[in-house]
Amino acid sequence: MFPYKTSIQFDRNSNQALYLQLSNQIIQFIKNQTLAPTTKLPGSRTLAAQLHVHRKTIVACYEELLLQGWVESIPKKGTFVHRNLPVLNQQKLDDTVLSDLKMDTGFSFYKNNISPKSLAKRKEEFLYFDDGVSDARLTPMDEIARTYRRISSKKNVFEHLSYGSTYGNDTLREVLVTYLNATRGLHISKENVLITRGSQMGIWLSSQLLLQKDDVVVVGNTNYLSADITFLNQQATLERVLVDKNGMQTDVIEKLCKQKQIKAVYVTSHHHHPTTVTLSAKRRIHLLNLAKHYNFAIIEDDYDYDFNYNHAPILPLASHDTNGNVIYIGSVCKTVAPVFRIGYLIASKEFVDEASKLRGVVDRQGDALLELTFADFIKSGDLDRHIRKVMKIYQQRRNLFCKLLKDELGSCIEFDTPIGGMAVWAKLNSKYSWATVAEVAKKYNLEIGNWQRYDSAKLGHNCIRIGFASYNEAEIQELIHRFKKTMEETMEMYRCPQLF
Amino acid sequence: MFPYKTSIQFDRNSNQALYLQLSNQIIQFIKNQTLAPTTKLPGSRTLAAQLHVHRKTIVACYEELLLQGWVESIPKKGTFVHRNLPVLNQQKLDDTVLSDLKMDTGFSFYKNNISPKSLAKRKEEFLYFDDGVSDARLTPMDEIARTYRRISSKKNVFEHLSYGSTYGNDTLREVLVTYLNATRGLHISKENVLITRGSQMGIWLSSQLLLQKDDVVVVGNTNYLSADITFLNQQATLERVLVDKNGMQTDVIEKLCKQKQIKAVYVTSHHHHPTTVTLSAKRRIHLLNLAKHYNFAIIEDDYDYDFNYNHAPILPLASHDTNGNVIYIGSVCKTVAPVFRIGYLIASKEFVDEASKLRGVVDRQGDALLELTFADFIKSGDLDRHIRKVMKIYQQRRNLFCKLLKDELGSCIEFDTPIGGMAVWAKLNSKYSWATVAEVAKKYNLEIGNWQRYDSAKLGHNCIRIGFASYNEAEIQELIHRFKKTMEETMEMYRCPQLF
Repeated sequence: MFPYKTSIQFDRNSNQALYLQLSNQIIQFIKNQTLAPTTKLPGSRTLAAQLHVHRKTIVACYEELLLQGWVESIPKKGTFVHRNLPVLNQQKLDDTVLSDLKMDTGFSFYKNNISPKSLAKRKEEFLYFDDGVSDARLTPMDEIARTYRRISSKKNVFEHLSYGSTYGNDTLREVLVTYLNATRGLHISKENVLITRGSQMGIWLSSQLLLQKDDVVVVGNTNYLSADITFLNQQATLERVLVDKNGMQTDVIEKLCKQKQIKAVYVTSHHHHPTTVTLSAKRRIHLLNLAKHYNFAIIEDDYDYDFNYNHAPILPLASHDTNGNVIYIGSVCKTVAPVFRIGYLIASKEFVDEASKLRGVVDRQGDALLELTFADFIKSGDLDRHIRKVMKIYQQRRNLFCKLLKDELGSCIEFDTPIGGMAVWAKLNSKYSWATVAEVAKKYNLEIGNWQRYDSAKLGHNCIRIGFASYNEAEIQELIHRFKKTMEETMEMYRCPQLF
Repeated sequence: MFPYKTSIQFDRNSNQALYLQLSNQIIQFIKNQTLAPTTKLPGSRTLAAQLHVHRKTIVACYEELLLQGWVESIPKKGTFVHRNLPVLNQQKLDDTVLSDLKMDTGFSFYKNNISPKSLAKRKEEFLYFDDGVSDARLTPMDEIARTYRRISSKKNVFEHLSYGSTYGNDTLREVLVTYLNATRGLHISKENVLITRGSQMGIWLSSQLLLQKDDVVVVGNTNYLSADITFLNQQATLERVLVDKNGMQTDVIEKLCKQKQIKAVYVTSHHHHPTTVTLSAKRRIHLLNLAKHYNFAIIEDDYDYDFNYNHAPILPLASHDTNGNVIYIGSVCKTVAPVFRIGYLIASKEFVDEASKLRGVVDRQGDALLELTFADFIKSGDLDRHIRKVMKIYQQRRNLFCKLLKDELGSCIEFDTPIGGMAVWAKLNSKYSWATVAEVAKKYNLEIGNWQRYDSAKLGHNCIRIGFASYNEAEIQELIHRFKKTMEETMEMYRCPQLF
């Protein structure tokens, strides 16, 4: 008989129940045919005595094996390894030795030279300049995970587990109607809401529906790089318009409209990405009137509506759109955390219907459980509470960061304190270059990152965006300390190039 | 003084803590300016006595208000409504009355007439013919939700909350390497794995990279409609090849290869969708050799590898691909539940790198928490256990469904019992049409659904797919009962058309 006593081992510190530990080990013996088909298993009392476990453990184990189909129970005879084990050996085509999948592809395909490669993994000893992202450590993970589990254990959860709507979960759409109408001054109903994976999907869907090869889209002369890439992927023509302290120059857009057909204007009206400026009231009205007159779409990417430190947020263009020109895009990535892929695209019903069809082709549908979780998170007021809490913290971080940047690096970095958002638009004294600074910074375990992305139009403005929200006060002190050391060494290099 | 006692109401049956109920109500009074800026709030003892709550409740409430920035605390003076409330009134552009967002769009855009509209909501009193989907009620929701919460409460969870890799979570990629190599006979490493949202995203990414306008893709003469739609969206040319009892006729593909350049062949080799037949071993080898010789890609959509009732699963084409021709696509949608948007695309590193860049443009990244949850679910053996359990149940359902279909409707429905999967390919006697049957069925609260989708090539085969897995035995009895009634009335209509 098979030596169960010496072959079976239990880990009593494991989280796994004993009966599962036992059944998993028996399955292995069945799989490798140590226990062959039709072998009789010992009676539960006998095996319990041998293994020094309760008889109930053996009974539960045998039930598990029966349920999984590894054994069969023959009345009055006992429990046997199943005579006919369907998945024991997979069928191979022939006996050739299979080699590993190659690195190269056995066919030709269309490569894309526009999108950037994935970023390398971060090193722990380094501090990083980021684009202005939230602090993951402040994510209200407990509340969200608790809500997710509560929703998952509801009796009617099964209604949400099968294929769902390409528009997104209806409850979340309804909650967003109330929330966005209250907080953004919108006047929308459920039909105007498409749930997306995040802002990026909203930009992509809009781009697909608005732009074909050579169609014109207007963007800032500096612009959010991911939007640029999305439009270029679509082979659209980008017209770049100057951004000044009042945002995009709308009179330049008007001139363009007179020259050629504009299909869309992409704006980050609340805090322009990357320069952080706010589009002025006068230009907002001008842009809306232009869109109405020249029939173009405004893609309004309102990525950080919630973070304002000096005054109330300015209502988005979408709240003043009475002609169906604005496609309003937002997400919870900045307010809660990027890992939660929940965003929205707000537009006329006609546009939302088409966008939802396209979304179905790309990834079928969203995650109804996560969407229900966020419906609850928003409706209960938890989102608002979270925003107000982190806003206070980010405001303190902005104040400290800007004070230190001015005090310690004012001689070589020029910037305006941003009135909102999570980043500073920092201009390096034109004597120096970010290429050199980035190189020197590495010595001080500081990573400036992909600074080129802020000047894809090659304007030579010598500015980059530096996020302040993701670091706590001690980390900000350290970041500025390393940056100062970096600049001191850089300046020394420029003064005495022979030393280096 | 403000009448707190009569204005504040507590719901002692609510899940919300009393201090939050109180702070939320006070926030409303501050927002609507019933409590104006600089108003002094009562001392905690006074308010506690008035509201009959513990003083700690008031202290916690004031702390919450302070944290959220609604009040300020002035030492030795007390707690006051903040004099400077930043988000109290949002700034409007002007005083115009804003009207609702219109149904129509104020710009022109590219509409798509290929994708189907979203399906209408299901009615409870109806039974539905489905395409072969899993039974949501069997989803191991407890295990998944528990795992999700455990992962969410780990100390290092914050590392996973910010922006992540466009390839998907590394842990899941590694787990899938082990799992797919063991269960599918693949020989892959992490670089060959891209995590997707589900099979549909895998098909879509492949389509984008392989096909441009007028490029040729080979599909079955009946084919999975969503794949057809994806290729048509890409403006590709579809060449349809006959599918017989051994799957797609590969000699027809060979003839095509001699005539024109083929970019890709889409196959559901394990159980062809919709007809459920398995691609024979001979044709598998033939197809792989053709791909190697003519340099085309094989998109192998292995949507239901796990469900086989008569014999072991047949290893996918991908397990025999030594030349980098196969793009292997799968997901957990059929094995666990469609709501979990986790799938994979397996291909050469070169192809996976490009697909991951494109994926970044569309929806940036996946959901790392859900990906970690499934990494754990697979690695712990829970997925295997779940599959074996539901397979036994689905097998019983298949047996019952096929027996009843034959016994009760054998005179008008012809079919082969499928050896795997979740659906039967059912041929209606050519005397009758599904259009009529679908119409009559509604009287019996039976919805045949979108039966046209199974014959998009207009072959007139008079077949549809009927899922058996999502209904329990009592429901199957009822489904067949209603179907039988429907057919009896339909036959009566054909016999005596004057009666109707």
